[in-house]
Amino acid sequence: MENTAQVGIIIVSHLDYGASILRTAEFILGPLSDCCSISVELSDQVADTVRRLDDAAKLLDKGAGVIILTDMFGGTPTNLALALLGKLNVEVVTGVNLPMLMKVFTERDKSLEEVARQAHEAGTKGIVVAGSMLRNKTKANEG
Amino acid sequence: MENTAQVGIIIVSHLDYGASILRTAEFILGPLSDCCSISVELSDQVADTVRRLDDAAKLLDKGAGVIILTDMFGGTPTNLALALLGKLNVEVVTGVNLPMLMKVFTERDKSLEEVARQAHEAGTKGIVVAGSMLRNKTKANEG
Repeated sequence: MENTAQVGIIIVSHLDYGASILRTAEFILGPLSDCCSISVELSDQVADTVRRLDDAAKLLDKGAGVIILTDMFGGTPTNLALALLGKLNVEVVTGVNLPMLMKVFTERDKSLEEVARQAHEAGTKGIVVAGSMLRNKTKANEG
Repeated sequence: MENTAQVGIIIVSHLDYGASILRTAEFILGPLSDCCSISVELSDQVADTVRRLDDAAKLLDKGAGVIILTDMFGGTPTNLALALLGKLNVEVVTGVNLPMLMKVFTERDKSLEEVARQAHEAGTKGIVVAGSMLRNKTKANEG
């Protein structure tokens, strides 16, 4: 049976970084649905943030699961997201950047596992040392 | 002769994403100097943004050059940054994420080329499909 629901998308980050990258994706792609950002501040009670995350993941799971993108492995936002693994149908991908987020939005009709795989691929391939790359291309063309 | 100046850091992005990730780095690392973010909006005149970028790169180059981190290859912010290559002592790394930015701030006493290499490495290694990784670890421990 094919799953016709879209994967839900949550960004968990320190401060308002998640909200900001989400606004940028929306600025480029147009209005986006079934997504949210959750900000983790030092002053927040951990229990309160876990509850907000848990609520959001349940709300956004329309049958295809939820991908949680976090700012950095080892940080509190990531650790709180990891606590949901095994309890809800979620996958956590760390180190969110714009290429990853754009890919997740355009491929969210795939399975959760596949969306996570593509998030990883788009995020890493989107990191390019541009000057070095362009110099190498120029050398190759001259060689 | 050893270069004692630090590499300058600029983030160029759509909207306020650059300012937001910079605030997050500052929240974690404490006050940061010789860095700035430049926001590119559709309504901005391209010439004006190029001038702001050019001014910032000149101001932040204390002798060790400037690394420009951008949100996404192919986007206007990246294209404007690439226009500075060859004219000023800058390197451009696309797909900025928090692990990359943290690394750049902690390694900025290295050469510009080395900072760019480490930015790429930290950015890509910081992208992890955490659930999949943890499940594989569990399997390996059981196997």
